Order: sequence, then structure tokens, then C-alpha cells
Amino acid sequence: MELIYYIDLLGTMVFAISGAMAANRYGIDVFGATFMGFVTAIGGGSLRDVFLNIRPVWVEDGNYLIAILIGVTISILFNKRLDNFARTLFLFDAIGIGFFTVVGVEKSLAYESSAISAVMLGMFSACMGGVIRDVLMNVTPLILRKEIYASACLAGAITYVLLSLTKISPDLNAFISVVVVFGIRFLAVRYNFSLPSVEEVETKDNT
Amino acid sequence: MELIYYIDLLGTMVFAISGAMAANRYGIDVFGATFMGFVTAIGGGSLRDVFLNIRPVWVEDGNYLIAILIGVTISILFNKRLDNFARTLFLFDAIGIGFFTVVGVEKSLAYESSAISAVMLGMFSACMGGVIRDVLMNVTPLILRKEIYASACLAGAITYVLLSLTKISPDLNAFISVVVVFGIRFLAVRYNFSLPSVEEVETKDNT
Amino acid sequence: MELIYYIDLLGTMVFAISGAMAANRYGIDVFGATFMGFVTAIGGGSLRDVFLNIRPVWVEDGNYLIAILIGVTISILFNKRLDNFARTLFLFDAIGIGFFTVVGVEKSLAYESSAISAVMLGMFSACMGGVIRDVLMNVTPLILRKEIYASACLAGAITYVLLSLTKISPDLNAFISVVVVFGIRFLAVRYNFSLPSVEEVETKDNT
Repeated sequence: MELIYYIDLLGTMVFAISGAMAANRYGIDVFGATFMGFVTAIGGGSLRDVFLNIRPVWVEDGNYLIAILIGVTISILFNKRLDNFARTLFLFDAIGIGFFTVVGVEKSLAYESSAISAVMLGMFSACMGGVIRDVLMNVTPLILRKEIYASACLAGAITYVLLSLTKISPDLNAFISVVVVFGIRFLAVRYNFSLPSVEEVETKDNT
Repeated sequence: MELIYYIDLLGTMVFAISGAMAANRYGIDVFGATFMGFVTAIGGGSLRDVFLNIRPVWVEDGNYLIAILIGVTISILFNKRLDNFARTLFLFDAIGIGFFTVVGVEKSLAYESSAISAVMLGMFSACMGGVIRDVLMNVTPLILRKEIYASACLAGAITYVLLSLTKISPDLNAFISVVVVFGIRFLAVRYNFSLPSVEEVETKDNT
Repeated sequence: MELIYYIDLLGTMVFAISGAMAANRYGIDVFGATFMGFVTAIGGGSLRDVFLNIRPVWVEDGNYLIAILIGVTISILFNKRLDNFARTLFLFDAIGIGFFTVVGVEKSLAYESSAISAVMLGMFSACMGGVIRDVLMNVTPLILRKEIYASACLAGAITYVLLSLTKISPDLNAFISVVVVFGIRFLAVRYNFSLPSVEEVETKDNT
């Protein structure tokens, strides 16, 4: 339990770094970078909790905001030098979205959502922070472009819900589901996979 | 009661089609289309429920998400051919927003909102999904442009609240209010009505 | 208590004027202006309440919506002539965000948020309405650009939380904190202060 809490804080920090770095690329001031780090880090989980009609965890536990401030500080101090760690950040992010997806599904099921809604809320937990970040930066959200990101989370969420119907232990289930998210995301970037656009589906369909 | 439930599912599906079609126009991938279908279909009702501090209905009832998946699948499979049904889709949409407006007002009053807030939340239920869709697609929301859409919902919501002060039966009231929304929307598109911009109000005011 | 209620209604009206005027600049219709006035006025407080898992105050108390309608009507009738009152509106706005910040912090603490979250929710209360307004108008939110606005609110929120640890009376604390927000905002605009961008922090850091 303790461990999961610290992983959650670490994941929050990684997301804050990613949000603040996006702001940095647009020449936004330090306050704006902090703000972007914050919404990216807590956006997805907060939306999930709002839909579950419970309080987002950061409202009562200030440690999440401190983790975000640390992440933002790192991104400001090491801004350009962070590019050297692009690969490391990518790996952290891929593990992070896997972890957030699984935590999101577990929490939704614990609060009695339906299985299909839990899948969706798990995916939301991992991805909506980035969507809000992109909307605020006034660019088309990444997950609407042809990259496999949210679909990796979706696959992981489905895996978790399906395996939870078997006798597998929750810990092993969580581990497998995180690996599914990470694996798909990693392979997609490595081999440059993408999903077909609707046009393509249709063309194929017609010929 | 049963009937209303199925109408609600049908309306959700129609909204999902509209959201996914918007995504299709921008060459977004199948996952993005699903995502857009989802937010368009549940955005308005979810926002209303979040403000009422209750759980959105789809969190516990998975049928709504299934209705959305069916709508998205239809929009992907029949993408361009759906243009032939533009008129039919318009009629469905006009009935749908009328229905969602009335359900939104009823639900808000049932959860003890003030009458004026119920009007607003009814209009929100019908229109905010589309607003979120447009924000995500990075275009100025339709309801901020000079077309009569949200104002039709507003008129229907006001009608419902005013008639509920009389001895009219709730069913008849709902029917009349849906007709008001549908009628205004239909006539506005048929005869190309629009509301004046503030500039125009002012010019008129000054001469 | 009475007085605070009326100040709150007045602040809501001033925010509605600012939202509707933004819409007017883009030639949006009267309905759109009303809608923008509404989201600008209630956006920040509603988001705070949603995160606290309580109902936004306007859902049950229709007076807030009436205050908004009055604000929108003023902005439509006096649209261009309002430019003559730009200075007055600026002063109102600067006092308004100070007031909203303090009310936001107080309410968050009253509902048992952590101190650091109360700071953030206080800043949110004052600033998120404007962020939503800018997102809907499809422009980069003002608070992400190099102007001191949200940071003034942040300073006021921190002041309030720190002073509340002393024996100062809540009323005096609130007064001082509002003055901090107003003072920073006023001086920033008067002397054209801005925060450094991350690039600048880094350059300074490297030389």
C-alpha cells in the first residue's frame, strides 16, 4: 500500500514535468508552466473522481501538490538539458500511464461503476490530463492525432477488467495490465504504428 | 418510464454519431472518433450531474456506453454515406436536443435546483456536449456562432418551467416543450434565422 | 455576512460583464454573449466546488444567475461606451479577483482541504472562469501569457493561509489578502511588470 502511494506521487511528478515542458516550448512564464504542470498531473484523476462523485485525492493530501511543484521546478531548472533524457522520460511516461490506467480502473470498480465504465474511467485517468494540457495550449489534443497513446491505455484497462473475472491475484493482474499498456506504447513508438483514420477504414471497406 | 429510458439511449447514440462524424471530417483515427463520439454524447448530461453533485448515469449503467459504441460504429462504417441522411440526422438531432433539454430541466428540479438554474442546466444538458466537441476539435464552439441552437433549447427550458407552474400534466408539458425546441430549431434552419450580434443591437439602439 | 453575500453577487456581475465584452469583441450573437458571461462568472467558483465535492452555490440560489443576466445586459446595451469605463472596470476586476481568491481559500479550508490545496483552489476560484472564457474563444488563456494576473491571486491566497496561522482576526486577514492581490495586480499593470519565461530563467542560470 505504502509503495503504491509513492509510485502515485512519482507518477504525478512525471506528469507535471511533461506538462511544464510543454509550456516551456511555447515561451510561457514560470507561473504558466506551474499551472500547466498542475493541470496535466491532476487533470485525469480529478475528472475520474468528479464523475465517481468523490473528492480528488489532492484536495485533502497536500503531498500531491508538493510532488507537482518538485516536478515543475525540475522542468524549469533543467529545461533544455531534459532533452538529453528524452528516452528516460518516454519510458517513465509509458510506465506512468500504465500505472494510472490500472489505478483508475481499480478505483472505479471499488466505487461501483459498471465494468465498461471502469474501462473508460481508467483510460480517462491516464489520458485526460494531457487532453486538458493540449486544449489549454490551443493545439489539437495528441490523443486525437494518429498516435497510439490512449488506445494503449484502453487495451490495458480492458485487460485488467477481463482478468479480474478470473482467479488471478489483483497484484499480478495489475502487473500484467501495466505491462500491456507499456508494451503497446513502446512498440507503437519503436515501430511507428498508428491506427487507421476513418477515411482509410472506409476505403478498405469499399474496395 | 421504460420508453423514456430507451429514448434516452437513442438520443445518446445520435449524439455519438454527430461527435464521431465531426472527428471523421478532420481525418482523425478510429480511436479519436470513438473518443469524440463519447464526449459529445455524455458531455452535457455529465456536466449537469456534476453541478447537481450526483453521479452521471453512465457511470453505473453501462448501456449508455454501449449505445455510444454502436453510434460510433455506425458513423465509421457508413461515414460518407451518412451525408445522404443529412436531413434525417438533422431531424433526429433537433428532436434529441429537445428531449435532452426537458430531461435536464426535470432532473435539475427533482434535485432541488432553483427554477432559473434548472432552465440553464436543461440548456446545458443539450448543448454542452457539442461545446466540448468543438473545443477539442479546436474550433470556435457552434453555439457561439450566429446560429439558433442553444437558444432553441433555452426557449424550451423556459417553456417547461413556466408550464410546470400551471396544472398541466408533466407528460403534456414535456411534449409541448420538446415541440418548442424542435419547432424553433426547424424554422431557424429552414428560413435561415439568426440572432443579432451585439454590434447590431447597439447600432439599432443608436439610430 | 449579508454584506459578503452582496459583494459576491456584485463580483459575479462584474465577471459576467468581462465575459460578455470578450464575446462582443468577436461579433458573437447576444445568446453567445450571455453564455460567455455566464461561464466567466461562475466557472472558477464552480470548479472549486466540484473539486470540494459540494454543489456550486448558483444551483440553488437563482440570484447569481440574475446578477449575471444584469451584467450581460449592461455589457450589451453599453458595449462600446463601456470602453470609456475601462479604468473603472479594471479596478473592479482587480478588487473582484482579490475577493474571489479570499472567499475561495476560506471555503476550501472550511471544507477541510489541505492548506496547500486551499491556496490552489483560492487561485482557481478567481482565475478559472477567465481560462474557460479564453478556451471557448479559442485563444491561449491570458494566465498563460506573460501578465501578472493569476500570480497576484496566488500571492493573496498564500498571504491568507499564512496569516490564518497567526492570531489575526479573519476579517482583517481577508482585508489584507485582498489588498495584496489588488496591489500586485495594480502595480503590475501600472509599471508593466511580467514574470520571466522559462527560457529567461535558464539563460540567467547558465551565464
